[in-house]
Amino acid sequence: MTDHVVGIDIGGTKLAVVVADKHGNILTKVRKPTEAHRGRAQAIDAILAMVAEGVASAGLKWEQISGIGVSCGGPLDTKTGIVYSPPNLPGWDAVPLKRLIEDAFGIPTVIENDANAGALAEWRFGGGRGYDHVVYMTMSTGIGGGIVVGGQVYHGANDSAGEVGHQILLPDGPPCGCGKRGCLEALCSGPAIARRAQAAVKAHSNTRILALAGGQIDAVKSEHVVDAARDGDELAMRLVDETAYYMGWGIANLVNILNPDIVLIGTIAIAAGDLLLNPIRETVRQMAMQRPAEVVKIMPAQLGERIGDLAAIALVI
Amino acid sequence: MTDHVVGIDIGGTKLAVVVADKHGNILTKVRKPTEAHRGRAQAIDAILAMVAEGVASAGLKWEQISGIGVSCGGPLDTKTGIVYSPPNLPGWDAVPLKRLIEDAFGIPTVIENDANAGALAEWRFGGGRGYDHVVYMTMSTGIGGGIVVGGQVYHGANDSAGEVGHQILLPDGPPCGCGKRGCLEALCSGPAIARRAQAAVKAHSNTRILALAGGQIDAVKSEHVVDAARDGDELAMRLVDETAYYMGWGIANLVNILNPDIVLIGTIAIAAGDLLLNPIRETVRQMAMQRPAEVVKIMPAQLGERIGDLAAIALVI
Repeated sequence: MTDHVVGIDIGGTKLAVVVADKHGNILTKVRKPTEAHRGRAQAIDAILAMVAEGVASAGLKWEQISGIGVSCGGPLDTKTGIVYSPPNLPGWDAVPLKRLIEDAFGIPTVIENDANAGALAEWRFGGGRGYDHVVYMTMSTGIGGGIVVGGQVYHGANDSAGEVGHQILLPDGPPCGCGKRGCLEALCSGPAIARRAQAAVKAHSNTRILALAGGQIDAVKSEHVVDAARDGDELAMRLVDETAYYMGWGIANLVNILNPDIVLIGTIAIAAGDLLLNPIRETVRQMAMQRPAEVVKIMPAQLGERIGDLAAIALVI
Repeated sequence: MTDHVVGIDIGGTKLAVVVADKHGNILTKVRKPTEAHRGRAQAIDAILAMVAEGVASAGLKWEQISGIGVSCGGPLDTKTGIVYSPPNLPGWDAVPLKRLIEDAFGIPTVIENDANAGALAEWRFGGGRGYDHVVYMTMSTGIGGGIVVGGQVYHGANDSAGEVGHQILLPDGPPCGCGKRGCLEALCSGPAIARRAQAAVKAHSNTRILALAGGQIDAVKSEHVVDAARDGDELAMRLVDETAYYMGWGIANLVNILNPDIVLIGTIAIAAGDLLLNPIRETVRQMAMQRPAEVVKIMPAQLGERIGDLAAIALVI
């Protein structure tokens, strides 16, 4: 009986392999640091060994595994299963990951970029359940995105769709990791919020943000901004509202283009909750067309820390 | 043999009914002014009479008609076939158009907003043939849009997807017909180009634009700008480049989100050709992510004046 699946989550700092049943219940999990600096061959060998270890420790035979899902940083080609130089995996240049895994285990393998796989997991197991048009946005070190339509990842022409964080809002704005300026990501990712906060704290030292960061301006992170805003700190509230304005503007554009049932936002939006989401909702109401704005829900993603594991297995369930 | 279809194109100024074979060859066409001011009952009676006239003059029997496609201004609900107050059809409030036509003729009827139907026609008969991911943008009195994925219109949650012209680029920019400010449409539609041109001509009267408009600043239209730019007029070239910059910025955002194979642009882009399209392409190359920008083609729409007729019949072929 092929009633189980394997999920592989390949991150820049850690690798994880989970074995799950067809309902998404995780039986075993194996973790290891990626040690990206030691190169791709090392990491791939580690992944293959972790898969074998996971299946064995779940007490399963290979015949019981129907599929292997791999969630990995992009760019990658979902058809050929080749991974092209993800920024967080130096040296991974045109790695035929699907073929390597299929050759090792003889089990059908699906490869997907992590934001798309996360979107699919939210649709399958999280806040997107029951919705036909789901947009998922990470809001963490970057702003990635995935679009799920009718339970399928929307890939676009060459697996590049869903780069919602790289829509440009301010062409003369702050530089973005992608090489452009003023992308939504350059304004609202964790590091971008921290950068805006550090500049603001320099000008207004009387803020709880600084205390939460241990008095060190350079140590100010987005978490300190959210926590200080929750305590009623004025500067922090202004920074949260500014973040919500840019997020709301970007989401309004998505709402006009994609007309989703729901937009689910990860990490920072989960931590900040309605403190951030309410002004985002208000901005979307003001900036999007009335008909698509009426229908869209803007909610925190639901899977939290579990998303990496569930993203990989959602690909093969 | 049900080998023919009827297409109904409902515009604010004219109604058209065509009868075509299954290859899209048009056998007969009946036209009439909409006379929107005379109300919906009058217009709907006229449409039903035109359908009967078209089928009769094509020498066909009702049994030979497999479907009726209706292209109409939105908003509308494609599932129920109800049309909700299109701005160009005053008094059309919750008109059950699909039911009225099906009751009259007993033939399955499909209703679609004109930009989506146009996108489908470009995919079926025009510049989008052979592509899986097509974005079509009107560029005329407004900037509407339609998204076709795998030969199907992408509708979104409540038939509001594809409002590509209402992404906001400049929140403090010029007012848009939709009630917001700085939408792509408020910067690059025909009237928006004319408005920018009129302001520019006031400040620099030494321009061929003014001569082409018969010396009347108020008479300056987007066509005069394009024609003067083609003649090498410096102010006109600057206005075309500015238009291309905003169009390119908006399209870059679409490219990052939707990763289309091709973006097809109507009316003004057809008239202006590479004069406008080349700087649009250059802006997209600069503002979009590299991978989706590499694959996307940006081309004039191909159906020109024929799009209204073909839009309606593309819905039922």
